[in-house]
Amino acid sequence: MTKSALQIARAAYAPKMPESLKGSVKIVEGRKTESIADQADIAKLFPNTYGMPLLTFEAGGAAKSFPAVNVGVILSGGQAPGGHNVISGLFDGLKRLNPNSKLYGFLGGPGGLVDNKYMELTSDIIDEYRNTGGFDIIGSGRTKLEETAQFDQGLENCKKLDIKAIVIIGGDDSNTNACVLAEYYAQKNAGVQVIGCPKTIDGDLKNEMIETSFGFDTACKVYSELIGNIQRDCNSSKKYWHFIKLMGRSASHIALECALQTQPCVTIISEEVEKKGMTLDGLVAEVAATIIARAKEGKFFGTVLIPEGVVEFIPAIKKLIAELNDLLAHHEAEVNALANNDEKRALVAKLLSADSAATFASLPVAFANQLMLDRDPHGNVQVSLIETEKLLIDMVKAYIKKNEPALGAKFQGQPHFFGYEGRCAAPSNFDADYCYSLGYTASVLIGEGKTGYMASVRNLTAPTAQWIAGGVPVTMMMNMEKRHGHMKPVIQKALVDLNGAPFKKLVECRNEWATQPSFVYPGPIQYFGPTEVCDQPTKTLALEQKK
Amino acid sequence: MTKSALQIARAAYAPKMPESLKGSVKIVEGRKTESIADQADIAKLFPNTYGMPLLTFEAGGAAKSFPAVNVGVILSGGQAPGGHNVISGLFDGLKRLNPNSKLYGFLGGPGGLVDNKYMELTSDIIDEYRNTGGFDIIGSGRTKLEETAQFDQGLENCKKLDIKAIVIIGGDDSNTNACVLAEYYAQKNAGVQVIGCPKTIDGDLKNEMIETSFGFDTACKVYSELIGNIQRDCNSSKKYWHFIKLMGRSASHIALECALQTQPCVTIISEEVEKKGMTLDGLVAEVAATIIARAKEGKFFGTVLIPEGVVEFIPAIKKLIAELNDLLAHHEAEVNALANNDEKRALVAKLLSADSAATFASLPVAFANQLMLDRDPHGNVQVSLIETEKLLIDMVKAYIKKNEPALGAKFQGQPHFFGYEGRCAAPSNFDADYCYSLGYTASVLIGEGKTGYMASVRNLTAPTAQWIAGGVPVTMMMNMEKRHGHMKPVIQKALVDLNGAPFKKLVECRNEWATQPSFVYPGPIQYFGPTEVCDQPTKTLALEQKK
Repeated sequence: MTKSALQIARAAYAPKMPESLKGSVKIVEGRKTESIADQADIAKLFPNTYGMPLLTFEAGGAAKSFPAVNVGVILSGGQAPGGHNVISGLFDGLKRLNPNSKLYGFLGGPGGLVDNKYMELTSDIIDEYRNTGGFDIIGSGRTKLEETAQFDQGLENCKKLDIKAIVIIGGDDSNTNACVLAEYYAQKNAGVQVIGCPKTIDGDLKNEMIETSFGFDTACKVYSELIGNIQRDCNSSKKYWHFIKLMGRSASHIALECALQTQPCVTIISEEVEKKGMTLDGLVAEVAATIIARAKEGKFFGTVLIPEGVVEFIPAIKKLIAELNDLLAHHEAEVNALANNDEKRALVAKLLSADSAATFASLPVAFANQLMLDRDPHGNVQVSLIETEKLLIDMVKAYIKKNEPALGAKFQGQPHFFGYEGRCAAPSNFDADYCYSLGYTASVLIGEGKTGYMASVRNLTAPTAQWIAGGVPVTMMMNMEKRHGHMKPVIQKALVDLNGAPFKKLVECRNEWATQPSFVYPGPIQYFGPTEVCDQPTKTLALEQKK
Repeated sequence: MTKSALQIARAAYAPKMPESLKGSVKIVEGRKTESIADQADIAKLFPNTYGMPLLTFEAGGAAKSFPAVNVGVILSGGQAPGGHNVISGLFDGLKRLNPNSKLYGFLGGPGGLVDNKYMELTSDIIDEYRNTGGFDIIGSGRTKLEETAQFDQGLENCKKLDIKAIVIIGGDDSNTNACVLAEYYAQKNAGVQVIGCPKTIDGDLKNEMIETSFGFDTACKVYSELIGNIQRDCNSSKKYWHFIKLMGRSASHIALECALQTQPCVTIISEEVEKKGMTLDGLVAEVAATIIARAKEGKFFGTVLIPEGVVEFIPAIKKLIAELNDLLAHHEAEVNALANNDEKRALVAKLLSADSAATFASLPVAFANQLMLDRDPHGNVQVSLIETEKLLIDMVKAYIKKNEPALGAKFQGQPHFFGYEGRCAAPSNFDADYCYSLGYTASVLIGEGKTGYMASVRNLTAPTAQWIAGGVPVTMMMNMEKRHGHMKPVIQKALVDLNGAPFKKLVECRNEWATQPSFVYPGPIQYFGPTEVCDQPTKTLALEQKK
């Protein structure tokens, strides 16, 4: 396999670690934990893994000997930069505890555990993947571990390999399932521990003890590089408005972080759109207002950041989509029997509630057709297929033509969507260090016999040596939520906090960014330069932890 | 203005220069030149600037004194990384010859010269832009300097500022016009020299004396970073085919260079498509063949690189577009009077030649509609608006469903288009050095009283100190071509040479890249690391200059 010069040079990078992980670790038990809500329900569902104490690691533990142990690792869900470093940290940590320990990787995500598809991860293999992006070392997958039949099958497969612990690297859903699995194995006294690691570029697995999920830092830096480059371009040619959609279906953390890094003219934050109860037309009017204001000063260019999932946060559209999902499930044949989209829309409009019919009628035809037709195998609208960036360009153009005819012809939009460009980038120094530390922390939790814990590394805006490693009971992050009609224990998703420092910073600055020359050009991630260039955490973290 | 940490750190970079530019320059006259074709015609059109000798700079010239001189600089056409360094090299070079020299920037492209919009570029301003991307220091524009009225107006404006020389930084067209301007001012004995600099990310301003145009290196490295990241992603999730369109309307140099850097499964080279006389269906079948072959080995993922202008290189479509442009110019009202696209297509088909009508009928309806409707102010099809990446995904999907029904459902395409993401990136070390050297070279040509020359810096795969700076008469690169019905002298555009080493390398490797794990992940441009990471020229240059 041909390697790029950077990949070769980067392989030699030794991730920095918290001081506490460098020698024998002293485990300090903190307070007993409670779930963030619905304590009684969660305690009942997790009799073995509820209420466990927080664990903090300190340097200077007594030297101990650890038995050799076989461990399995799983990459779950969408890729995030740094997954390979979690695995290499885990590998190195296990080998330090006992060089005879073995690490197995289950292939293609959680399905690999159920189907017993695996490979042993030896040092030769690990060394090929240190500090690289991607999840290709063992692949990932979206199979959900939810059924006891899967758990039993997984246990059987663990027994074949003498695996005593599983590390699941995933987002909120995967870590919820990891905890359910931990509880199940504990109840059965199966002798298999389960440890989680917080992954997702979306940044929505975040709470008091998990300051950020890994990959968010790198992905946002890649997107910000591109946004900055586009801003330089539009500031040079002065003729386009670039509408840039950013991956992240639920939360707008990515859009917010990229805005803080690049200072665009307009940033849409889904959580704010929902809070304000905005309509699509209202959102369009708001974006257009900035464009018109700039045009009146002779500036026919700018940038708009759009979170991928924004249309689902517009209350009227959220309601419409829910009704459509329901309605089409019952009337699919009737609708499909009609000859063309005009007739289909007319029938659908008749079947909707009055409110939703009005919303439906207000939408551009192409968008209305898309909501009616493109459905996933479960009958849901595939929101990720909606080209929100183009929808907004078209609607803004129409709005300006109608309200400011003299300016209409001068508005030219360019759509972009960034997602796959950043999910598998090679990790920044921050993510390389953070991920390696998370993996190493998982090895310590395994050595200590823990289960139902998530690896936690905190104090992330301090120098790496001062980062605080430890373990957090997963149940601590849970509450009960309705899923597919049933109440389930789940890790609460962290949306953008409209009272938090990062959003407040945006609010404080956005008028200036909209009207004054404010673009920032972050440039590409650097691995070898001065520390202020190479080792900065996200603006989100810096603002959240500002003393 | 807020600056990113990288921008601040990067401002301190001192571009490397050829040895010959570091002290007093010795000017060595080489052979008298001839145009590459149509010598008699070109000689007649350029009596004052034809047949001038090549100039090579050597170190160790006698110290001379130069009078102070006022110089104007123009950025012309699309942005390319490094434009600011050309200007800073020019500025530093002029100041070294005489600290009382002044540099004026004409604003917003060649139009600034005609309209007398300008600013003086002082060291404070220059220092703000060293090693940054973009053309925003003075802006760019696409006004073409072609009319004598413009030349006369420009001359008048130069006289007001006592400007004795103009440097035009642009692509093949802009340099052609620069030479026409040089000739005009020489004929009039106007006392204004004109010097060109070779800019374009497309890489198609290239010949014996111009090894590469500036910006190509950086832009290709940005696109290759993104392609590599996407390849990591598709190698991890193993479920998508990414169809990646790359900017560059005419030549496929960008697609070829990115292919050499990233080793994708399929690379389309427009020049090969034309040479082979391929049809759109034939191209689709060829792309689908690789996808089917991989699918049969269980690999439902991969990457396809698509040059932006490929549809215009398909001979049948090129012919169809030419006929459509002509036909719609004469029958626009008739066509527009019809009620719907079906009727319009039927009428258009009747008016086309039999061959083109057959081609037209073979196209997907949406694409046919687009060819019929989206026209620029000159009545031409706006090929850049055609979403070739989506067109190919749809056609490949249809092809696979028809020919390999069992595999059809498993093919999922993801479209991308990269252009604006790279045109204004901060220049790589290579482009920072190359551009600075070009600007410095231009200052020497001005000092020596030259006009009608392009700054040339060669031997670019050697260490910077050994680069060879000098001047090339622009007429040397010219031939006569038909433009808007008239024969004109123009710089010959350099398309991909199907007998050249870079394309041969692609041909040699592409079967392996199509079927074997071959992806390369170049990662982001690095500015501070080891030289093998930070200072490499493009693969294209390396292959072309391989001894």
